[in-house]
Formats: sequence, C-alpha cells, structure tokens
Amino acid sequence: MKSRYALKIEYDGAFFSGWQSQTSSPLSVQRRLEQAFLALTQESVHVYAAGRTDTGVHAQGQVAHVDFSRHYTQECLHKGGNYYLNHSGVQILKVQRVSEAFHARFSAERRIYRYILLPRSSSSPLWKTRAWWIKKPLQNALLEEAAVVLTGSWDFSNFRNSACQASNPFRTLEKVVVEHVEPFIYLQFQAKSFLHRQVRMMTGAMVQFATKCITLKEFLAYLSPKDSNSKPLAAPAHGLYLEKVLYNDFVF
Amino acid sequence: MKSRYALKIEYDGAFFSGWQSQTSSPLSVQRRLEQAFLALTQESVHVYAAGRTDTGVHAQGQVAHVDFSRHYTQECLHKGGNYYLNHSGVQILKVQRVSEAFHARFSAERRIYRYILLPRSSSSPLWKTRAWWIKKPLQNALLEEAAVVLTGSWDFSNFRNSACQASNPFRTLEKVVVEHVEPFIYLQFQAKSFLHRQVRMMTGAMVQFATKCITLKEFLAYLSPKDSNSKPLAAPAHGLYLEKVLYNDFVF
Repeated sequence: MKSRYALKIEYDGAFFSGWQSQTSSPLSVQRRLEQAFLALTQESVHVYAAGRTDTGVHAQGQVAHVDFSRHYTQECLHKGGNYYLNHSGVQILKVQRVSEAFHARFSAERRIYRYILLPRSSSSPLWKTRAWWIKKPLQNALLEEAAVVLTGSWDFSNFRNSACQASNPFRTLEKVVVEHVEPFIYLQFQAKSFLHRQVRMMTGAMVQFATKCITLKEFLAYLSPKDSNSKPLAAPAHGLYLEKVLYNDFVF
Repeated sequence: MKSRYALKIEYDGAFFSGWQSQTSSPLSVQRRLEQAFLALTQESVHVYAAGRTDTGVHAQGQVAHVDFSRHYTQECLHKGGNYYLNHSGVQILKVQRVSEAFHARFSAERRIYRYILLPRSSSSPLWKTRAWWIKKPLQNALLEEAAVVLTGSWDFSNFRNSACQASNPFRTLEKVVVEHVEPFIYLQFQAKSFLHRQVRMMTGAMVQFATKCITLKEFLAYLSPKDSNSKPLAAPAHGLYLEKVLYNDFVF
C-alpha cells in the first residue's frame, strides 16, 4: 500500500534549473528532492508540484506530493529530508500525510504568486537576485489601473510562451494586488491556474504601461488576441515567487 | 579647496570583510568605494562612515562622507561611482554635496539598526545569509519584555567586545521595537551611538531570554557589570542591517 505525503517547500530559484529539468546541470528542484528522499529511504520516488516554476523563479510556498511504498512519520521525512537537502538551496517547510485523492497539481484550488519590483535610480546589492530593478520612473496610478484591467476573465493567448501546453488559453484572475512596502512594490496575482510564463508576461506588460512605454490601447491589445498577436516581454524570473497554493479542506 | 560629499550606501555584507578592513582579501566596503572613486576621478580619497559595520553585517542606509580636491556634480559621482562598483556587492544610493562641517560619523544624531530573526522549524534557503534562523520556540512576550528592559540608559560594559575603543560604556537606547512581519521578527534598535558589537550582543541576550535559555535575573545581570562580568553571545552578523543614520538639518 502506498503512503502519500504533501510537502510545503521553499527554494532559491538561483540554485536550480527550475522545478522540472531538461538538463542535469544545474539540477532541477524536483530532481534534488528525489535524490534526498532516495538517500533517506532508499526508495526511488517521483515528486509532483502544484506549479512547475521556470529557471530562476523562487518559491516560499510550493506544494508537492510524493508516494512511498512504506509508511514514514511526518517528522522523519521532514527532518531527514532536510538533512539531505542541507545547503542545496531547497528546504522542506512541512510534511503532511494525505489521502491518495490528494494531488498537488490537480487538487489545487488557487495559486498565489508575488512579483517584487524595486523602482529607484540605483540597483540593489541586497536584492540583486530577488527583485526586478526598475530604473525608469514608474507611475503608481498606472500600475493600479493595469491591475484593475487584468482582473477578471480573459483570453491570455498573448501571455503564454510557445512551450505552453494548456489546451485552453482562458484564465480568470481573481485578484491582482499592488502593494507598496518601501522601497518595493509587490504585485500579487491570484488565480486557480496560470498559463506558462503568464505571471511574468503580465508583470512585463504592467511595467511597460506604468513606465509609459505603451499606451492603454496597446495594453488592451495584448488582451485581444483575435485582433493582435503582439506579446509583452516577460519580466525577469528572479523577481517572481510562488507564494502559496490553496486547497479545499487542506490548509498548509 | 576641498569639496565634501555625503553618500548613502547599500551593501551585502557577505561580499566584504566589514566596513574597515585589516586584511586585503576579501576587500572592505571602504576600500572598494575608494577604488571606485580612484578609477572615476584619479583622486586617492578616504571614505568615512557613520557606522563601521563588522564582517558580514549588511547596510541599507549607511552614510559616509568623502572629500575631493575638485568639484564634481552629484550625478557624476553617483552614476560614475556605481559604474565602477557594478557587481561588487555595494552601490551608492544617493550623493549630496555638503559643507565641511558635516562629518558622517561625528555629526550623526541617531543610528537605527535592524536585526531579522526567522523563528521556525526549518531553515530558509531564501534567507540563509539574511536572517538568523531560530529553531527553539521563541516566546514573543519575553522578547517584548526584554525590549522594554533594554530601553533607556545602561552601562553596557558586558555588551561590547574586547576590540571596542569607546571610552565610555554608557549608552542610551531610545527605542527597541519588536515587529512581527510573517514569517520574520524584526528587532529595531535606535540610539545616538552603539558600542562595538552591542546590537548583536543585545540581540543574542534577547533571544537567550525569549527561548528560555536564561532567566530574567540572568538577563538583568548582563546589565549590571559591577556585579557580573558574564557576557551574552553575539547574534550572527548576517542577520544585522544598518538601516538608517539621522542627522540634524540633513535628511538623507
């Protein structure tokens, strides 16, 4: 009988080739976790994540699940896993035994991403690999306006990259929040699910608009893929964090 | 005639051997700035800081001053300096021409340090070199109590290291603030000046008390150097940030 466990995970994206790797160097987060569990339990397992983050993207609250052929205590997997993950750039924050009905990706009801902008004249040594430095003057009112526009249901065909495998380009953004926490601006995006690279492309479009590189008409054109196939540039990966994944009847 | 400039500086302490170095490898922040100004202006200058931070300590708002034999525009020193500081771990945030009466260290009216604690069961890949991970349960009420106790004027002889050159061990802590910003606890310390290593030793004592490693009596004994010479352990350097330096008639 299988034993399934949900994992809450934090990682520094700079250490990895994203969640799922094509290459072996640098390692993917998934592969690194699987190595740690192999070392701990001698079982070859597969770890499935709620969000397959790109190379360089960070996570403070990634959720994944993993099946073992034997039963282990939550504490054994948590502490033992972290022992083998030490200094690797990824750590397990929590382990919880779950039923086989739970699937980190397909049971997820809501994903929350945060993008951190640093709008100022000088770059930041402390936030170099953690926030997107915006040198051009940024109009807060325009950022707020873009957030209001994006909220709701749209055909996001212009906000996905060519590798996106989703059959349906429609997504519903439940929330786009702009929060000022000196000296940063946090953008928070909440939806049931996102297309591949959607958050970074939305952030790119919002910043283009708020720095007056594009007009409202051009911003709206991105959202009308039938009339226009121009795509916004994606914001850099290092400013993006998978913050939280929410499930029904399961709080992590 | 000399031209004096005040500088506001940010740096990642992990890159440097502190503000003022004894050794040449790794460089000190001071030396790195002096190199950049030499490259930019061909002048050999000395840069004086408000707070001579230890190895590993970060700064978001260090203030320094520097004299040049010629006049340069603020923009030239700011942008040109940062050009030569690129990827070095330190950046100039602001440059302002000041009178010769201004001295970064001796004119400073107030120094504000922040210490970041991360109290939880797992370490943090994202905050590994930026916050002190506290694994033992931390009692918030005790942390608040310690903050109240420390506030005011004390003989801080037990809160300085042997290299401290100050003639007077008395200091007045104007403010000690405990702020919870999930998942962190920020400790903020404000005083006209601090002894060498005082903030890290105060943080060490507060955490010892809040994790119940010492009693209130033992905590108070640290503050009674006439009766006790036991010293608290210093908290690690990588959780400490020089946040702000305040001057009269000069806002930076």
